[in-house]
Amino acid sequence: MTLLDGRALAAAIRERTAGEAAALAPVLAAVVATEDPATEWYLGSIVKAAAAVGIELQESRLGVDDAGGVISTLEALSADPEIDGIICLTPLPPSLTLAEAGERIAPGKDVDGSSPLSLGRLAAGLPAFAPATAQAVIELLHHAGTELAGAEAVVVGRSTVVGKPLALLLLAEHATVTVCHTRTRDLASVTRRADVLVAAAGRARLLGAEHVRPGSIVIDVGTNEDPDEGMVGDVDTDAVEPVAAGITPVPGGVGPVTTSVLLRNVVTCARARAG
Amino acid sequence: MTLLDGRALAAAIRERTAGEAAALAPVLAAVVATEDPATEWYLGSIVKAAAAVGIELQESRLGVDDAGGVISTLEALSADPEIDGIICLTPLPPSLTLAEAGERIAPGKDVDGSSPLSLGRLAAGLPAFAPATAQAVIELLHHAGTELAGAEAVVVGRSTVVGKPLALLLLAEHATVTVCHTRTRDLASVTRRADVLVAAAGRARLLGAEHVRPGSIVIDVGTNEDPDEGMVGDVDTDAVEPVAAGITPVPGGVGPVTTSVLLRNVVTCARARAG
Repeated sequence: MTLLDGRALAAAIRERTAGEAAALAPVLAAVVATEDPATEWYLGSIVKAAAAVGIELQESRLGVDDAGGVISTLEALSADPEIDGIICLTPLPPSLTLAEAGERIAPGKDVDGSSPLSLGRLAAGLPAFAPATAQAVIELLHHAGTELAGAEAVVVGRSTVVGKPLALLLLAEHATVTVCHTRTRDLASVTRRADVLVAAAGRARLLGAEHVRPGSIVIDVGTNEDPDEGMVGDVDTDAVEPVAAGITPVPGGVGPVTTSVLLRNVVTCARARAG
Repeated sequence: MTLLDGRALAAAIRERTAGEAAALAPVLAAVVATEDPATEWYLGSIVKAAAAVGIELQESRLGVDDAGGVISTLEALSADPEIDGIICLTPLPPSLTLAEAGERIAPGKDVDGSSPLSLGRLAAGLPAFAPATAQAVIELLHHAGTELAGAEAVVVGRSTVVGKPLALLLLAEHATVTVCHTRTRDLASVTRRADVLVAAAGRARLLGAEHVRPGSIVIDVGTNEDPDEGMVGDVDTDAVEPVAAGITPVPGGVGPVTTSVLLRNVVTCARARAG
């Protein structure tokens, strides 16, 4: 069993990104309307990585119920010529979905693929940023040398931020793709088909050894808060390790790569805007 | 085995649509830059059904290489206050993809869900028209009383016009969804898992009895020209009939429902524009 180390891959991406950022002085705007500790943790990782790479981070803090403020802030940032990329962190105020917020992000600054237009362009095979988490999964699989063309890929979770865009990315890689979710009958019988299994359900340790085909590659997108153990994934890593050929740890797997992909996207935007 | 009759369902949809169209005098614009006989056949069915329903159809004919003409026509129709809905027929001039053309269709007139924005909104769970063919498959399944929640649905084909949007629609119906394609290893072993099997590969009689699980529902989206037999589907219907619980014929299955869904969408647009 190989532990698929996200930190090493993330560092390699950051190094390339830093080289490109130097001449561009890119600016990433983060809109935050939550006090959720997991979001703070993620934002903290972005802050740290942005500083290391040479990207300026501008935080806009809004009240947890201030849907109007989120929308007007996203519109102002979209129009601001100083801003290269915009990320809108979740959870959002209850009256606002991420898709609705994403519609207010200018397409050329949508570094986390939050807008329906980015998602649709991705689905249509046109150039677009995928949500950074979904893209990070693909980067990890490439880095691990996993053959995706013709592989059976199973994604557990059908969210707009991970499950659905990831299914589209895996299809573009020529995998046969199945998407499972809470309504799937006999989850284990479906996930055991997978050569590549991606857990993006948001439920701590949902997947155990019985869900995993021997010799498969398991990517764990989950970041669930456990009162005793801190952050735990959607996969019971200890149970799955003896079965899988490779698995990403949590933390240290998909997370750091996500942050690096996000920052790389900011530099891509800055380069496009610099002409 | 039940033959799932698209013509009866299409007539029922048209009857409701005609009742609503009467007060609105809706106008559908069709942009055609091909001499493909299958396209002419489809356009003919739209012309006939539009007349029956009370929708005016305006055809814009362009040369088979006139990509610029297609784009400027779509832009003019999008801006024209007399036009309620726009459909851009395929095949398009070789230098133009449907997604690129679809980007020129105003979102409020995109009755065939051709624009990346419509596709992204569909994926994000926001209101949008799905491509009429994909929507027609769902309508046929509902009409047949097929339980989709928790069902295993397998879609053969990953096109932007049918396979991918249909996968999204089936996910929204709470099916466990697998998308297969030319790179799928051992297609029959995957399709045999299906409670609901949708053939949208565009290859005449790709699927035979060995691809079908006994008792399943088979929807055949294919419309392939056979030199001897005229239009044939992606499914070898004679071979599959003894195995499946239900199957759509070609012609007379998905096709007429697609046309009816398209016209219903035009009336929906006209109603929205009438306020």
